[in-house]
Amino acid sequence: MSKKAAVIMGSNSDFPVVKSALSELKKYGVEFECRVMSAHRTPAEAAEFASNARDNGFGVIICAAGMAAHLAGVVAGHTTLPVIGIPMKSAALEGMDALLATVMMPPGVPVATVGINGAKNAAVLAVQMLAVSDEELAEKLLAEKNKMAESVREKDAELQAEIAGL
Amino acid sequence: MSKKAAVIMGSNSDFPVVKSALSELKKYGVEFECRVMSAHRTPAEAAEFASNARDNGFGVIICAAGMAAHLAGVVAGHTTLPVIGIPMKSAALEGMDALLATVMMPPGVPVATVGINGAKNAAVLAVQMLAVSDEELAEKLLAEKNKMAESVREKDAELQAEIAGL
Amino acid sequence: MSKKAAVIMGSNSDFPVVKSALSELKKYGVEFECRVMSAHRTPAEAAEFASNARDNGFGVIICAAGMAAHLAGVVAGHTTLPVIGIPMKSAALEGMDALLATVMMPPGVPVATVGINGAKNAAVLAVQMLAVSDEELAEKLLAEKNKMAESVREKDAELQAEIAGL
Amino acid sequence: MSKKAAVIMGSNSDFPVVKSALSELKKYGVEFECRVMSAHRTPAEAAEFASNARDNGFGVIICAAGMAAHLAGVVAGHTTLPVIGIPMKSAALEGMDALLATVMMPPGVPVATVGINGAKNAAVLAVQMLAVSDEELAEKLLAEKNKMAESVREKDAELQAEIAGL
Amino acid sequence: MSKKAAVIMGSNSDFPVVKSALSELKKYGVEFECRVMSAHRTPAEAAEFASNARDNGFGVIICAAGMAAHLAGVVAGHTTLPVIGIPMKSAALEGMDALLATVMMPPGVPVATVGINGAKNAAVLAVQMLAVSDEELAEKLLAEKNKMAESVREKDAELQAEIAGL
Amino acid sequence: MSKKAAVIMGSNSDFPVVKSALSELKKYGVEFECRVMSAHRTPAEAAEFASNARDNGFGVIICAAGMAAHLAGVVAGHTTLPVIGIPMKSAALEGMDALLATVMMPPGVPVATVGINGAKNAAVLAVQMLAVSDEELAEKLLAEKNKMAESVREKDAELQAEIAGL
Amino acid sequence: MSKKAAVIMGSNSDFPVVKSALSELKKYGVEFECRVMSAHRTPAEAAEFASNARDNGFGVIICAAGMAAHLAGVVAGHTTLPVIGIPMKSAALEGMDALLATVMMPPGVPVATVGINGAKNAAVLAVQMLAVSDEELAEKLLAEKNKMAESVREKDAELQAEIAGL
Amino acid sequence: MSKKAAVIMGSNSDFPVVKSALSELKKYGVEFECRVMSAHRTPAEAAEFASNARDNGFGVIICAAGMAAHLAGVVAGHTTLPVIGIPMKSAALEGMDALLATVMMPPGVPVATVGINGAKNAAVLAVQMLAVSDEELAEKLLAEKNKMAESVREKDAELQAEIAGL
Repeated sequence: MSKKAAVIMGSNSDFPVVKSALSELKKYGVEFECRVMSAHRTPAEAAEFASNARDNGFGVIICAAGMAAHLAGVVAGHTTLPVIGIPMKSAALEGMDALLATVMMPPGVPVATVGINGAKNAAVLAVQMLAVSDEELAEKLLAEKNKMAESVREKDAELQAEIAGL
Repeated sequence: MSKKAAVIMGSNSDFPVVKSALSELKKYGVEFECRVMSAHRTPAEAAEFASNARDNGFGVIICAAGMAAHLAGVVAGHTTLPVIGIPMKSAALEGMDALLATVMMPPGVPVATVGINGAKNAAVLAVQMLAVSDEELAEKLLAEKNKMAESVREKDAELQAEIAGL
Repeated sequence: MSKKAAVIMGSNSDFPVVKSALSELKKYGVEFECRVMSAHRTPAEAAEFASNARDNGFGVIICAAGMAAHLAGVVAGHTTLPVIGIPMKSAALEGMDALLATVMMPPGVPVATVGINGAKNAAVLAVQMLAVSDEELAEKLLAEKNKMAESVREKDAELQAEIAGL
Repeated sequence: MSKKAAVIMGSNSDFPVVKSALSELKKYGVEFECRVMSAHRTPAEAAEFASNARDNGFGVIICAAGMAAHLAGVVAGHTTLPVIGIPMKSAALEGMDALLATVMMPPGVPVATVGINGAKNAAVLAVQMLAVSDEELAEKLLAEKNKMAESVREKDAELQAEIAGL
Repeated sequence: MSKKAAVIMGSNSDFPVVKSALSELKKYGVEFECRVMSAHRTPAEAAEFASNARDNGFGVIICAAGMAAHLAGVVAGHTTLPVIGIPMKSAALEGMDALLATVMMPPGVPVATVGINGAKNAAVLAVQMLAVSDEELAEKLLAEKNKMAESVREKDAELQAEIAGL
Repeated sequence: MSKKAAVIMGSNSDFPVVKSALSELKKYGVEFECRVMSAHRTPAEAAEFASNARDNGFGVIICAAGMAAHLAGVVAGHTTLPVIGIPMKSAALEGMDALLATVMMPPGVPVATVGINGAKNAAVLAVQMLAVSDEELAEKLLAEKNKMAESVREKDAELQAEIAGL
Repeated sequence: MSKKAAVIMGSNSDFPVVKSALSELKKYGVEFECRVMSAHRTPAEAAEFASNARDNGFGVIICAAGMAAHLAGVVAGHTTLPVIGIPMKSAALEGMDALLATVMMPPGVPVATVGINGAKNAAVLAVQMLAVSDEELAEKLLAEKNKMAESVREKDAELQAEIAGL
Repeated sequence: MSKKAAVIMGSNSDFPVVKSALSELKKYGVEFECRVMSAHRTPAEAAEFASNARDNGFGVIICAAGMAAHLAGVVAGHTTLPVIGIPMKSAALEGMDALLATVMMPPGVPVATVGINGAKNAAVLAVQMLAVSDEELAEKLLAEKNKMAESVREKDAELQAEIAGL
């Protein structure tokens, strides 16, 4: 049976961004669990969740956090599953703080970091990881990739019409 | 049979850093291919390699590039495999240019970015991805994780001796 | 016969900024084609367009993209025409990500980078390039330059009136 | 009896900088324990140490870490003692990564951050905290402050001689 | 009797942010004084306040200032009490100017810096300092820490309901 | 007859970097003039040179300057030729000062900016501009592009040998 | 007779910020001239104005410009009067581009730079320069300084009332 | 009689950079006093020096400091003389910390900031300020300006010879 994805956010205020990861996972039919757990406020829960994630059927863990974004790193310290970090933009510094706090991990404990507020990409990356050995999922990714290209071509066609009318 | 890892660098001048990814992959017994291919100088080769990577038995692609580091993004545009980006520090800007050029990917085409010059972590992340459905590899990751912890404990013990002698 | 300018954007969401490049090109009577093509979503189209651009009568290619802005670099990899890059400001980092991803190109594959969201300047630069061997176009540039100076002088005169009334 | 200071570093490679904190603590006669513990490699030890620190007679915890410096934040998540963070400069980004990862803590879990590589200041700050209710220690701080001022005055006097000879 | 906290801001325009420090201090029953004093406009007052703070029953001084935020450093130059600096975000540079001007103190004169606009955390840190030798206050901090964890768990529970309804 | 390239540097201390632009121009057989002229120390000479450059047979002007790099912008203010700016890395800030001072030009006066210390790329870009209407030069660019690709392929082949021996 | 101040801005769009410099100069009774002149669009006017400024009775020149803010530097190249630069915040990069382009001047040609959008401070600095040998103006500066301090004290008093009512 | 210049540095470790300001002042025959005084370690001395500087015959005060460079701002708070700030590059952050801490002063208390480590320019700016009403000094500035231009022209001539020999 296929592995699940975990989506953890450090604060429920991250949900408006994070939920686009959930809809993306749904699109691919990937089962997921979504949690609020904090590296600083509920560290024991986060540690326990991460430690047991593989045994509980998860194949990948997505972590979203802002500012001194430690969640992904802390989770990565407790699991051998790949951990994807979403640096969240918050009230100052345009998300640069969260980006550096997520990506600059010490040797041996990587976090697969996506762009600032990149919730959709975190989900796509999670699906890609699960699809490494899952041909069916890989087919879906390819179909989406083609759809995405088609959409660019449509936008290009619409643009030609718009420009003609300038 | 287990998937291979591809390791691509934009320039052979990146090899002194990148080779620590190769030794890490070897440690885990992950088969790999290592190539010099440039997003700007040999774009057709890079595109072709990426397009065929899944069919050629690869499960993950690691890309290392510096400055306006486009290699990982370009490769990601041609595959549904997970792509890991290593931003390389070069002569100016401390690697910030490569970090931003690697991580800030548009929706739908993620690059799993590790820290600046993070070749070892790119390899560990690649192994984690391959281990999602490979229990044996997962065991090795756990063993390494334990070894890493043990090494910290040894360093701590050595430090106590050193401090006692201060 | 005079060369055309190509204007490519990575996403149609860039059009509100990019269209000021089009009106600038029109002002100079430079024929142009404007396209949506993505370095990551439709890389083959972008590569093909760039590869054939010189043969198709283009003299310069303007590329606008945001975040990890690879479009200009990718296009530059496929042509010997001068490529102008417009780094687009997007939701985070004030356009610094796009600026670095556009300008820090490796040796041998330059991108002529203008300021963040500098669509008008990209067009002026394109006209300047086409005017290198086109005296008529050079005359128009000089006329515009004079008009621009005249406009500053008018603003200065208006300011004197405004200050007098303070 | 007076409280102890804990000094934790994420890696023994931080010791050349961190040891100036130890000599500073010694100068004030503050008892300390110094440890290597990693937020990512030995998270359980770090959590346990922090959780029991108050009961074990510590009054303040100094944490030094580089890159995505999570150590201080993780420790702060497990204690109500004040936690002082030293952002360590490492191979890239001049310590800006560690600074942001240390200081930008979410509401409720502060880290008292000092400057990059500011080991001496971390120790002085620790002493200041311990001296809040310890008059004797406060006297020592005042004496050091006066000595420091005196040293500036001596340097100024030496400079006058040096300038006279220019 | 327990020590008081001082809260100083460089301009009354900082009060909307700073007042969350006051309510936090109230929550813990810590007595405080709150002042507007400027390092540049009323330096003598700031120096005098700082010089006498310990004798006047203060145990810690919180300073909030923006731009070239010198207030905390100047205060720290006149006292042996621990000084907490809140870098305030102002009209440009996202608070990076205030952060660097607050945290990068020279050896011997530390400022315990919290995150940009981190008024609540400054107060929590102040309470932690006062609680080093005050068991009752330490108990309150622990109770708050538990409450904070409980609140995350509640948010997590609410999220489960929300997701179920997606 | 073909147009010349001008290469201007703000200080002769820039020559060690700038000379790689000269050898690149020579490789393509592009005639050039190389000058030291300063936007701040010899502004009149710079203005005069720029004003007359087109009449004097120049087709493009390359300007190299560091710190508050005004040279390219000032030159662009006096000519309708395309101006290429090389931001020079100097003693502080890693060239970021020169990059921003060169690229962020106001509407109507573009500078075609290349990467920090990107002297070779400035020359290639200059050749590309001159080749817009010069088929022979365009052929040379294509030949170099092919040679560059071939060199990458050779490096790739060498790497295979090196890896085999690991 | 007392010297005049010149206030030059690169674009009339800077006037909303710059006008606070004018009202400040008026407060001190310093005569001024205010102009729109561009380093890039009307370089000859700017050069001529600067060259003749001392002879025309000016004692100081304030220059406001945004983005690649060359105006102050260009003016400084044509005069021995002190030149004050106001870096203007514009649509991207929070004014950091203008700050670096204004302040990082090469040896021998300084620009006295004030903070981003610091128009009032530019005027105060100009008055301070004119007051070096003008006791009457110095008296006014002292009176303003005292008034400023008094205003802080009033704000402090108001705050006490506000806090009492919390 | 002509006014003196004061040159203050926060630490004698700044002297190797600062001394080029002294030689520059000597070149112009400007009398100066040079002191080590710290905003944080000897704040009373700094305040007193600044408060009495005008009465003691100073016309301008140059302040050099690194990291959270408060010296110039603190001095500016105690005088109506123009204060010039030299941000010193120190062990981390390339001097950006000192630059922001020096230049971003609040309204009413300007610091005339020069570039990072810009000691020579601080001296030239000081001379320019003293020369506002001193024709003789103004003549010297003009002579130096001409000499500087001449030196550029010589460098240009030397370059022509060097290039001819390439």
